[in-house]
Amino acid sequence: MKTIEIYCSFVKMLYFCRIYILTKPVMNTTPKPIIAVHGGAGTISRESMTPEKEVKYKSALREAVLKGSQILEKGGSAIEAVEAAVIVLEDCPLFNAGKGSVFTNKGTHEMDAAIMCGKTLEAGAVACVEGVKNPIRLAKLVMKKSGHVFLCGPDAVKFARLYELPIMPPDYFFDQFRYEQWMEAKKTNQATLDHSAEDEEGIILKDKKFGTVGAVALDAEGNLAAATSTGGLTNKKFGRIGDSPIIGAGTYANNASCAVSCTGYGEFFIRAVVAHDIACLMEYAGMSLKEAASKVVLDKLVKMNASGGVIAVDKYGNVDLCFNSEGMYRAYKRVGEKEFVAIYRD
Amino acid sequence: MKTIEIYCSFVKMLYFCRIYILTKPVMNTTPKPIIAVHGGAGTISRESMTPEKEVKYKSALREAVLKGSQILEKGGSAIEAVEAAVIVLEDCPLFNAGKGSVFTNKGTHEMDAAIMCGKTLEAGAVACVEGVKNPIRLAKLVMKKSGHVFLCGPDAVKFARLYELPIMPPDYFFDQFRYEQWMEAKKTNQATLDHSAEDEEGIILKDKKFGTVGAVALDAEGNLAAATSTGGLTNKKFGRIGDSPIIGAGTYANNASCAVSCTGYGEFFIRAVVAHDIACLMEYAGMSLKEAASKVVLDKLVKMNASGGVIAVDKYGNVDLCFNSEGMYRAYKRVGEKEFVAIYRD
Repeated sequence: MKTIEIYCSFVKMLYFCRIYILTKPVMNTTPKPIIAVHGGAGTISRESMTPEKEVKYKSALREAVLKGSQILEKGGSAIEAVEAAVIVLEDCPLFNAGKGSVFTNKGTHEMDAAIMCGKTLEAGAVACVEGVKNPIRLAKLVMKKSGHVFLCGPDAVKFARLYELPIMPPDYFFDQFRYEQWMEAKKTNQATLDHSAEDEEGIILKDKKFGTVGAVALDAEGNLAAATSTGGLTNKKFGRIGDSPIIGAGTYANNASCAVSCTGYGEFFIRAVVAHDIACLMEYAGMSLKEAASKVVLDKLVKMNASGGVIAVDKYGNVDLCFNSEGMYRAYKRVGEKEFVAIYRD
Repeated sequence: MKTIEIYCSFVKMLYFCRIYILTKPVMNTTPKPIIAVHGGAGTISRESMTPEKEVKYKSALREAVLKGSQILEKGGSAIEAVEAAVIVLEDCPLFNAGKGSVFTNKGTHEMDAAIMCGKTLEAGAVACVEGVKNPIRLAKLVMKKSGHVFLCGPDAVKFARLYELPIMPPDYFFDQFRYEQWMEAKKTNQATLDHSAEDEEGIILKDKKFGTVGAVALDAEGNLAAATSTGGLTNKKFGRIGDSPIIGAGTYANNASCAVSCTGYGEFFIRAVVAHDIACLMEYAGMSLKEAASKVVLDKLVKMNASGGVIAVDKYGNVDLCFNSEGMYRAYKRVGEKEFVAIYRD
């Protein structure tokens, strides 16, 4: 009888242990800080790329994630990291943002940018700003100092001057290649995406490369942030604004779900509220980051015939670089691990 | 035995009938077309309102829903109905949109507007446009003719001229009351919301009335649409853009969920992606229109200390006019029924 009692107690103990194991919260070790960047998506074919150009692109993407990663490693915030990474890409003439911005129909460079903090949901954005060396810095300034979220046009540049942000003369933004792109676009009176690829059926878009840069990050404190910057469409007119500076469309961060930066056919990304949709699919439909990004980019956007991609991170340190185009300039780096850099699908 | 067999057959029949009743789709009779409008929300107290003013406001709101409702009654589309209703409010000097737009810091009138079709997810928006008599018409033109979604500034006005939309001289927008509001705001160098009420703690916002107009509708074909138009903040500067023209924030329509037009403290409405959030709570979290609107306006926005409201309709013809402020100028009319018009909470 004694043996049976001991046996029963043992079984009970096992049973309760099982309940404990099944019900105790999963002990998440704090995920390592991570940063991801993109430099645009679209028809990026190996044929149109020389080995030298490929090295240059990859080196710039690497530099951007390393810059952001160094900040995260020292305990810096996700906001600081995404801003710094985007500045690297804005200062590089290869990408259509900041220095490398394309020409508008008037021969100017009108840039858009946005930044968002996932912890506070604070956000800052600018559209159609000329001469500002780093539009992402202006977007952050709007977030921190203006009491507003979204400023545009020459009056937004006045705000930049008020805080002594560097304003550059037009020749800083001059690039022979971009100029030729513009001349080409003017011939057909079309607004075109970044540089040339094959023809497109659309009325507006002659080619299929989406020039934008962006970054998303998770910091050591578990906070998320997103930032996006662009020169928009070559030969654009009428003060066109794309998805990049639209909170919810091209840029969104929320600690409850994820941080997202988009690159693609902006008009469709606005209509599909892409970045916020990914966040909502996670928060309300219980999808993982990968499932949510795939649902939007590989299903919804494809059905709309909208080309492009997103980079996204969540609070667990998951990262997803998802695109429905041929390629996307992209990279990510987890603190303490080697960076990943890629251009093509494979 | 025979009796038992008959009895069994009868029971079986009853059982299958039950299955049929439980599984057959709910036969929705097509919901009646409906339109709702708002003319802004905020601290609207009975004390500050004369009976004459109240009659004028209510009469304008009534005129707007009747105009939209007449279109819906004749089988017109939700897009046509919301555009027509918003034009009525833009042409009325009582509301801060179109003719009644407030003064910017420069003494100009810079208007924002957006429109969206729930069937196609097509959208059009404009920001910081001066002189355009009906910014909502320009937003619709952007949607239909520009190949873009969002245009801003003087270049967007060029697009309006190209299609010969009426452009008015500055005195068309002059209003003594608005002018005095502006003079008052200039004294303190503050950007303020619509006209005066009690003081506010915020740095930027002196008073608490949010001047915006908007409309949402469901048409006979079951399609939804939303439209919003505003003059923004009195004494605003730096090219500030609020939530009204941001697809997903101040304006959103999707036949899969609902159509929403917002009015409130724009910066918070952008950060909370209000209109799209309501749609996602319905589509992904299975909430009803009322639950979703309440969750966002009465819970999330209240926690952000963001005042304002929304009008929303869904594909079943449900309507919700939800606000966390003291009042909201609002009305709705279901085709064939009497209109509802209200200002205060009770």
